[in-house]
Amino acid sequence: MSYKKPDICIPLTGKNLKEIKEQLDIILPKKPNLIELRADFLDEINNTSSVLNIINTILNKTSIPLLFTIRSSKEGGELIELDELEVLQLLKEVCQKTKVSMIDYELESKQEYVKELLLHAKETNKKVILSYHNFNETPRNEVLIDKLILMEKLGAAHAKIAVMPNNQADVFRLLDVTLHASRKLNIPLTTMSMGDKGKLSRVIGWIYGSKITFAVGARSSAPGQIEIERLQKSINEISNSI
Amino acid sequence: MSYKKPDICIPLTGKNLKEIKEQLDIILPKKPNLIELRADFLDEINNTSSVLNIINTILNKTSIPLLFTIRSSKEGGELIELDELEVLQLLKEVCQKTKVSMIDYELESKQEYVKELLLHAKETNKKVILSYHNFNETPRNEVLIDKLILMEKLGAAHAKIAVMPNNQADVFRLLDVTLHASRKLNIPLTTMSMGDKGKLSRVIGWIYGSKITFAVGARSSAPGQIEIERLQKSINEISNSI
Repeated sequence: MSYKKPDICIPLTGKNLKEIKEQLDIILPKKPNLIELRADFLDEINNTSSVLNIINTILNKTSIPLLFTIRSSKEGGELIELDELEVLQLLKEVCQKTKVSMIDYELESKQEYVKELLLHAKETNKKVILSYHNFNETPRNEVLIDKLILMEKLGAAHAKIAVMPNNQADVFRLLDVTLHASRKLNIPLTTMSMGDKGKLSRVIGWIYGSKITFAVGARSSAPGQIEIERLQKSINEISNSI
Repeated sequence: MSYKKPDICIPLTGKNLKEIKEQLDIILPKKPNLIELRADFLDEINNTSSVLNIINTILNKTSIPLLFTIRSSKEGGELIELDELEVLQLLKEVCQKTKVSMIDYELESKQEYVKELLLHAKETNKKVILSYHNFNETPRNEVLIDKLILMEKLGAAHAKIAVMPNNQADVFRLLDVTLHASRKLNIPLTTMSMGDKGKLSRVIGWIYGSKITFAVGARSSAPGQIEIERLQKSINEISNSI
């Protein structure tokens, strides 16, 4: 039986170029499959040329694909000075002027902005991950599946949901949702159950069809993330046994 | 989150005392949590004193609990010369005259024999695993859950099902059955999805509530069993991550 191992993604959470470089020095030897720049951690996110410079510095240091993310504070990100329109504009600049591989955008953003970003990403040959985060609970299965289907329908290249379990059953439910959605969708998807209870989903979610698992390289960006070395080891061990 | 690691059981499949001793020499250093004597492999299963002697030899060599099993050929075991009544009589002797920890008996045996064995086991302070095997398919969820419930109702100390998946979905279904049944039952249960497709269940079934996983120590006793060293490593790695 073959189950494809997931891509392991390490988030960069530095607040300026110096910290990003320091984190890269720690992260690159750990060979993640994907790196995420969590730009909401940047002090100067309102300075577009500084952001573009940071992106280019990363891209010059490695050929590992880069995911660019501005997580909103509503969905677990850092508080930033940009409003929703300014975020959209920055993302469009990043699409146009850099060689990032993917852009994360939240499904719950203004619908017209979602459409605009997806159109712009298409023109600039960038992939968009539409994402949904819920730090309070794990919504009902149908709600989650509907969100994933909507992401595909809107034109996402990848669909992502990260939700908080309130009990063990929520974690198994999320895995079940992943299995069903991965059969239904034609685009890849990534799911995770956050926090300590949800760790299991970061270790075995790929068996259920989740394509990316986020791990700690230098500093965690969400609750429940596991050190990359540990996660790589667990995934390789499972993969060798099944 | 804590998920209790499963007991790893190694089957002994030697056909006489010499082979059993050779297998024990290989198996004991691997530190299984449980050893199963698959007595249907024994040449002299129709010689009760020979069987008792083999059991006592094993018990003298180790304090690891011993499970005594005569798997019927109908459910995947070796062809033996004993009829169903003779099997029952041998199991009763083993209960009475040895210090095995558990006896396996098939749910689909004659109902009066099941009742008689359970009664006898109770009197001799032995635990009974009632088991169900299907080498052709993975029956519907309700069928499997009903079997597990019936095992508990009849008085089993442990309920076990081993079924064959015809596709990946059957494996996930078996895990789902395990999760639901483990919430419903008051006795421990063990489940597995056999063959190459089902290997996953041997590695992660414990997360869903399966208590024993069978591994290869010296020689495999059922399709899809994994080497104990590999299985121990995978389970420990997962356990350390979640």
